[in-house]
Amino acid sequence: MIQEFILRDTFARHCGIELIEAGEGFAKTKVSLADHHLNGLSMPHGGLIFVLADVAFAAAANYRGIPTVALNVNISYLKSTESKTLYAEVRELNDNGRVGSYHAKITDETGQIIAIFEGLGYRKSIK
Amino acid sequence: MIQEFILRDTFARHCGIELIEAGEGFAKTKVSLADHHLNGLSMPHGGLIFVLADVAFAAAANYRGIPTVALNVNISYLKSTESKTLYAEVRELNDNGRVGSYHAKITDETGQIIAIFEGLGYRKSIK
Amino acid sequence: MIQEFILRDTFARHCGIELIEAGEGFAKTKVSLADHHLNGLSMPHGGLIFVLADVAFAAAANYRGIPTVALNVNISYLKSTESKTLYAEVRELNDNGRVGSYHAKITDETGQIIAIFEGLGYRKSIK
Amino acid sequence: MIQEFILRDTFARHCGIELIEAGEGFAKTKVSLADHHLNGLSMPHGGLIFVLADVAFAAAANYRGIPTVALNVNISYLKSTESKTLYAEVRELNDNGRVGSYHAKITDETGQIIAIFEGLGYRKSIK
Repeated sequence: MIQEFILRDTFARHCGIELIEAGEGFAKTKVSLADHHLNGLSMPHGGLIFVLADVAFAAAANYRGIPTVALNVNISYLKSTESKTLYAEVRELNDNGRVGSYHAKITDETGQIIAIFEGLGYRKSIK
Repeated sequence: MIQEFILRDTFARHCGIELIEAGEGFAKTKVSLADHHLNGLSMPHGGLIFVLADVAFAAAANYRGIPTVALNVNISYLKSTESKTLYAEVRELNDNGRVGSYHAKITDETGQIIAIFEGLGYRKSIK
Repeated sequence: MIQEFILRDTFARHCGIELIEAGEGFAKTKVSLADHHLNGLSMPHGGLIFVLADVAFAAAANYRGIPTVALNVNISYLKSTESKTLYAEVRELNDNGRVGSYHAKITDETGQIIAIFEGLGYRKSIK
Repeated sequence: MIQEFILRDTFARHCGIELIEAGEGFAKTKVSLADHHLNGLSMPHGGLIFVLADVAFAAAANYRGIPTVALNVNISYLKSTESKTLYAEVRELNDNGRVGSYHAKITDETGQIIAIFEGLGYRKSIK
């Protein structure tokens, strides 16, 4: 089910983001940096780093098949990196039925945390 | 100068985002929605909406030619939209020399606010 | 009804915060700074500035009598001030029935914005 | 040095918040809930929960004696609690010299996380 969800996520594919793991309240994504992923300062684009984590957030939040949309996200950019591959790992912290809270770490190849992401998801229906 | 900055922003171009206005502490971006801009629920991707505002934020923050990177962004998604064109308009609220604070509204063709975005930028040098 | 709600808010009273206006999706609070409102750097405490806006947020969000709790708040501190009175003014930006989005400006006596606050409230019941 | 800093924090004392541990990039605070800590729904006030974490954040960020003020805080309220004592534990995630990033967990007596807090601090001088 989560595979179909991700197949429909055309923007994730357009950005080169792969879902490499997903489970109940958990997901991990990956991106291999390319020339079209840079910002105006020639660094990996902060928007790309957001999308990487957002795709993992969506996979974790929609895993059970209940359509869930983002209400709010807070992202802090901690470090720059020379790494050519980035990962985002998301975990659900809480779920009150209607609203779920998720935390993501964005890391580089060395395992260093380059950004942290907190997301709140709103379930459009309740099973 | 801001034109060169945006020319180097390959990710903005890859995502189809255009800078349509920029000035001192101000910028406006636009995206025409296409099939590769959707999420797994077939709505405009929350990541795209973030990137749209982030590109305007970067343009406003880097306008004076001082390299400025994002420290933190908070985005709230308020409404869904059927609109085929989205805009983001960013204004600088404050600048203490090292850190600038920016507010963006993301709107659809009818002018309705679909998301709000608060960004803090860190200047890597001080003129 | 909002008057009874505020009377029960013992922490607002303990902090010296007054509700000076409230209406449908709108509220304004005030605090007169005293010696017990300072932080370790002898400035008005960032926690007090948060509470000032949070009380206005709660009043605006609970105005219709539907119990509403905070899900998430993002606050940015923009400027320091020498002012002895601070105000917070909150407006509802959106309400999807279950979740409402609120924006607050915290200002000093000169009208200068010293902090901005974005809150998401969750309605525990729906009328 | 951090003891003097906390002694000057009159608002922390007024709110009944105790600093129970502090070290390099780390601090822990505690509050015993009393009648003057409630909100209009008779729950522990969200503003108090913020102040509890904010005092720990300030202690961790000012530990080395470099005056550091909050730039931005994001707090998510995850659960309500019946507990009569609350704790906040803050850790520094990163420090670029000028800006430090801090993460706090607010827990109850059972160790359950009731809120999470992300803060960015700005150092007013650099040693």
